[in-house]
Amino acid sequence: MQDVRHFSGELDELKARLLDMGALAEQRVVSAMRALQDRDAQQISEIVHGDRDVNVLHLEIDDRCFKLLALQQPMAVDLRTIMAAVKINGDLERVGDLAVNIAEAAARYIRHSPIKPVVDVPRMGELAQAMLHDALSAFVALDPMAARQVLIQDDLLDELNDRLFRELLRHMLNDPRTIEAGIDLILIARHLERIGDHATNIAEDVIFIVDAKDIRHRAVDAVDSTRP
Amino acid sequence: MQDVRHFSGELDELKARLLDMGALAEQRVVSAMRALQDRDAQQISEIVHGDRDVNVLHLEIDDRCFKLLALQQPMAVDLRTIMAAVKINGDLERVGDLAVNIAEAAARYIRHSPIKPVVDVPRMGELAQAMLHDALSAFVALDPMAARQVLIQDDLLDELNDRLFRELLRHMLNDPRTIEAGIDLILIARHLERIGDHATNIAEDVIFIVDAKDIRHRAVDAVDSTRP
Repeated sequence: MQDVRHFSGELDELKARLLDMGALAEQRVVSAMRALQDRDAQQISEIVHGDRDVNVLHLEIDDRCFKLLALQQPMAVDLRTIMAAVKINGDLERVGDLAVNIAEAAARYIRHSPIKPVVDVPRMGELAQAMLHDALSAFVALDPMAARQVLIQDDLLDELNDRLFRELLRHMLNDPRTIEAGIDLILIARHLERIGDHATNIAEDVIFIVDAKDIRHRAVDAVDSTRP
Repeated sequence: MQDVRHFSGELDELKARLLDMGALAEQRVVSAMRALQDRDAQQISEIVHGDRDVNVLHLEIDDRCFKLLALQQPMAVDLRTIMAAVKINGDLERVGDLAVNIAEAAARYIRHSPIKPVVDVPRMGELAQAMLHDALSAFVALDPMAARQVLIQDDLLDELNDRLFRELLRHMLNDPRTIEAGIDLILIARHLERIGDHATNIAEDVIFIVDAKDIRHRAVDAVDSTRP
């Protein structure tokens, strides 16, 4: 009984650390986007060079997962939770890297005149952040309904990215002086789209934990279900 | 004894499936790059729509890992191998996605005149492919020395990407008619750079399996080692 309680405590601690990691990654994305809007070179530089905390947590969480698997030999939902934690940890580490990528592009972007009518970049940033937040909340609550909402938001983020790409291209063709700034905004939008992809991965992991059902590659399922 | 033999067979089978997955992902990158160079719209379209096999294998391998963890309760090097397999599987699935991303950019690129003097894109493609190949060979042989070679190659790939970015930017500024094609080559180069990142992840996992040592985030280690 004591062992069970101990294990459950360890699992709660693992989830808490993943949430810390998520909050940190989210914070870095928000800071990078704010620094971009404020054209704040100092803040941008801090994001580029400040990924140590994310990396420390990444290693710590991986280590926790390994020890839980080695010492506790968990089954069923607990095993699925730990397997999902390994993946979610990897996704969050990549989100931290993407915050760095955004800041690197922002550092170049602010050397040029801003491109005015682009409102979709901050909007994409807010959406990507919301998706990440919602995916992690769904993980804590083990709420597959909330997780499915994240999947829907991802389609909107992709749509915003496509629209922005076309809009920026038009600017660059009309006014070649916007080429350099335009490329960096295109790259930043891509990074935000990928943050949305990582939030989507996390949401899919939540559905896997709860429903013991792998909903990734839904097209694959669709094809398989038509088989005789 | 029979159980041990059975488990060892299952683990070999898992590795074999991961190699299949790696070969498939690598093949798709090679095809996407060849289709880009041949300006072959038909081949490009096949890559964009042909990721079903990768996705089927991705699910199958994840399932194998889960069952091995659930039924065999592996320890030490076997547990590390399975944990690494979960991650490598995720990396290879992303490489498959990146082949699609390359093909999507290639589909746009071939609508415009080619940008002539860019020799670094095929070179980046060959390097990314070689890194992926070497990382998987290192995984099969559990050879940390070979894995470390992959990490060195990644620096070269990043360097090629930076150089290409500057070269393309110069083209676009000199001749705005190259803007659209230039953007797509910049995106393709980024996708190749990310394939290199996934090969690097795999190489780091190999070192983790063999040395039971986590060498990711080496800067973190460096800072920690100076602590009293």
